[in-house]
Amino acid sequence: MKLVTTFEAPAALGGEWLTGRGTDADIVISSRIRLARNLRGHRFGAQADAEERAAIEEEIRGGLSRSEFAAEMSYLALHGARPLDGELLVERHLISKELHRGEGPRGVCWSPDESVSVMVCEEDHVRLQVLRSGFELEAAWTAADSVDDALARRLDVAFSSRFGYLTCCPTNVGTGLRASVMLHLPALVYTKHIEKVFQAGAKMGLAVRGLYGEGTQPSSDFFQISNQTCLGRSEHDLVESLQRVVPQFIQYERKMRDGLLRGDRAALEDRSWRAWGILRAARTISTEEALEHLSALRLGAHLSILPGAVTMELVNELFLMCQPAHLQRLGGGPMEPRARDVARADLMRRRLGEL
Amino acid sequence: MKLVTTFEAPAALGGEWLTGRGTDADIVISSRIRLARNLRGHRFGAQADAEERAAIEEEIRGGLSRSEFAAEMSYLALHGARPLDGELLVERHLISKELHRGEGPRGVCWSPDESVSVMVCEEDHVRLQVLRSGFELEAAWTAADSVDDALARRLDVAFSSRFGYLTCCPTNVGTGLRASVMLHLPALVYTKHIEKVFQAGAKMGLAVRGLYGEGTQPSSDFFQISNQTCLGRSEHDLVESLQRVVPQFIQYERKMRDGLLRGDRAALEDRSWRAWGILRAARTISTEEALEHLSALRLGAHLSILPGAVTMELVNELFLMCQPAHLQRLGGGPMEPRARDVARADLMRRRLGEL
Repeated sequence: MKLVTTFEAPAALGGEWLTGRGTDADIVISSRIRLARNLRGHRFGAQADAEERAAIEEEIRGGLSRSEFAAEMSYLALHGARPLDGELLVERHLISKELHRGEGPRGVCWSPDESVSVMVCEEDHVRLQVLRSGFELEAAWTAADSVDDALARRLDVAFSSRFGYLTCCPTNVGTGLRASVMLHLPALVYTKHIEKVFQAGAKMGLAVRGLYGEGTQPSSDFFQISNQTCLGRSEHDLVESLQRVVPQFIQYERKMRDGLLRGDRAALEDRSWRAWGILRAARTISTEEALEHLSALRLGAHLSILPGAVTMELVNELFLMCQPAHLQRLGGGPMEPRARDVARADLMRRRLGEL
Repeated sequence: MKLVTTFEAPAALGGEWLTGRGTDADIVISSRIRLARNLRGHRFGAQADAEERAAIEEEIRGGLSRSEFAAEMSYLALHGARPLDGELLVERHLISKELHRGEGPRGVCWSPDESVSVMVCEEDHVRLQVLRSGFELEAAWTAADSVDDALARRLDVAFSSRFGYLTCCPTNVGTGLRASVMLHLPALVYTKHIEKVFQAGAKMGLAVRGLYGEGTQPSSDFFQISNQTCLGRSEHDLVESLQRVVPQFIQYERKMRDGLLRGDRAALEDRSWRAWGILRAARTISTEEALEHLSALRLGAHLSILPGAVTMELVNELFLMCQPAHLQRLGGGPMEPRARDVARADLMRRRLGEL
């Protein structure tokens, strides 16, 4: 494991989850498995003082550095790291906003393709995540399980034979597992059927959230759907239940897309082409508006409305790069919001204008 | 004078008033003088029965055909003409909506460059109009006066030594003159100062109206400003008072444009470029939205924000051609509103996409 002091993005394009590959990738952007783990013999993060947190961070970092699976991974201690690095990691979905905003000893370890990350001293001592492009929950679960096994060989993990894995928040006790998918549902939003998805999700014990998970509002046409229960069911059951429900949402979105194509093709084409026109022309644009148009580009590309040069990889790249921290990294320094809006528009014109 | 049975548009581009030439043409689109005249010995149009209206129309048509100034002009009898022809003439500002929607014998006579038109059996027996590109009220008045003199030699015009020219509506009695200018005031609209223009206009006895004159709402960034009085002042006085006031509005708009360029150049550039991007990409667009974007193109062209290929002539051509009747003439037949929106977007893409 390589200890780093800054986050150096490996390339313009982000991790494996941004490649646009995988099953049902026209609708499922990514699949995620997250496991919450804590060390035996230490207080949970919220109760631990600075000294104990430092000990926890050191113990986990040590365990990771001795793990074979982490041989190629990088570790960044977030205390002392530049705030912009934390923001970049949030935008790449490698860490949570909570870890970024936290205080004291804490860190993150990630794999070169960014599909595996291990947050240290977040709400729980360890938050392990596997993120995959497309609808690949099973594969993500298999990978997460194997990383978890490897970690368990190096760390003394708190486990109760009665409750299962012990976690800071009772909602995570048991498997400590959260499975989620990020869905792109523009046709359900456009036809105003999205509320039904929320209602169906709630009935099935699923949470529907925005782009950055807990505490963020669903905005634009992107939704994160995850299981809410951790206790009383096996990991396999939890993954399998989401695996069973998501295809219904996928079908629902496809049906609406077909309906739009048949009933109001002109409006659908118009929406994609306008997004294309605006992104190639605007001189200033907010993140929110850029995401709205990128959503229309994504749909237009999948429905073969837009030129073939508008690939998923390109849309996903812009999706990532148009965010505030990435824009500032690209621009070489801190920027005020207004300057970011100008830089964002410049980026869009440059990348889409050359097609 | 050539009697025609259909209106054949001479070219894609409309009349002289659409050339974008003349004084202060960056803000003053066109200047117009209208004179209302009636024949002695006939009832006004509203009181005349069908037989009398037929006699009036015949008498005026005869007078026109014997006038030298009308030698090159065309005359279309609107009773019996196709409705689309009437709509085309309205969109070209050659006739009023009232004449188009009227019933019974009525017609219009216009010059090849469409700067002179004579409406027959509108509210008054004769409505003579001269329309010029730019801020050219004096030139328009001189031309109108000369046509009026020529007409007076062929027609027995109702004139009272006490009241002046007698007209159907008392507000036109006296000179029968209405002078007006069409102004493009996007910066005053954008900065929300336009209400002050309305208030100042009202105080000076001026009317502020929309694109198609009386009864139309000011929409988009285009405003028609005209005198309200006809009685008790000479023609020269009436023209001169508008001639004196309009430069204040021009200065006010220029000041706001300068202010925007200095204070919020990015927003101004963004607005013009987005209009450009949307018009080059949209697949369906309403007249109202097209006018809004053409207004931004016009401003962007005058402020040298947009490519030099975006000329006033091109913007004005699109301005004319994007209207419903012109679109249908271009498309070769009647179209439903939705089909027109698609045809309008096609036209914009074709003409702006090739630049």
